[in-house]
Amino acid sequence: MSSAGILETVLYAQNLDEARRFYRDTLGLLCTQEEEGRHIFFRCGDQMLLIFNPKKTIEQNSAGIPVPPHGAFGGGHICFRATASELHHWRQRFENQGIAIEADLEWPRGGRSIYIRDPAGNSVEFAEPRIWGLP
Amino acid sequence: MSSAGILETVLYAQNLDEARRFYRDTLGLLCTQEEEGRHIFFRCGDQMLLIFNPKKTIEQNSAGIPVPPHGAFGGGHICFRATASELHHWRQRFENQGIAIEADLEWPRGGRSIYIRDPAGNSVEFAEPRIWGLP
Repeated sequence: MSSAGILETVLYAQNLDEARRFYRDTLGLLCTQEEEGRHIFFRCGDQMLLIFNPKKTIEQNSAGIPVPPHGAFGGGHICFRATASELHHWRQRFENQGIAIEADLEWPRGGRSIYIRDPAGNSVEFAEPRIWGLP
Repeated sequence: MSSAGILETVLYAQNLDEARRFYRDTLGLLCTQEEEGRHIFFRCGDQMLLIFNPKKTIEQNSAGIPVPPHGAFGGGHICFRATASELHHWRQRFENQGIAIEADLEWPRGGRSIYIRDPAGNSVEFAEPRIWGLP
């Protein structure tokens, strides 16, 4: 037995207002839930991106539900799916908004990745699934 | 425009041998790539779970490719998809292997989650997608 997929991907940010602007307004994700100062949750396809303030989640439950504590500090990493055509449009959008492209790579085995930073310093990649041999 | 899904989910672990045993042998994920001391990569459905040693990735490229640095310290969080029936089997497997169940929750709006820890201290959840209203 193994899992059919990852349901929740987590990043950490201490400033959730900046995270909301970036993931909702710049990346276009649907914000589904928010608890001020603690977390903000987004839907991405049939998965969830959960952004937590680690200073809260290392000690605090959510709405009285005893979820186990967690919290990491430092720049994390995530990669979103994109087609070759979408990568072209993402790059244009980021340039138009003055967001620095930190890297734009063609992988030796085929496929392209572009990398930016979110306001918290997490490394945010957009890549073609074929870099992993995935559909 | 927004992304169709998350392609890479990242956790950090300084001991990659322990991470291999846990994610490959206990959770049954397919290990697809490894660079000793730096990273170990797993496939999960049509997504990738990437586990990095943050002490390496905050400074070191991979195989000469200039990927942007990243690396976080502290217990992160991930959640894998599971059906109600699979949750029953996961709980049995973890108990048989002496892995502590840190929480086993029924959410107020429906759906169940169980939580364990990976050897690096990351909070690892298995949950029904309906806890997010997802199929």
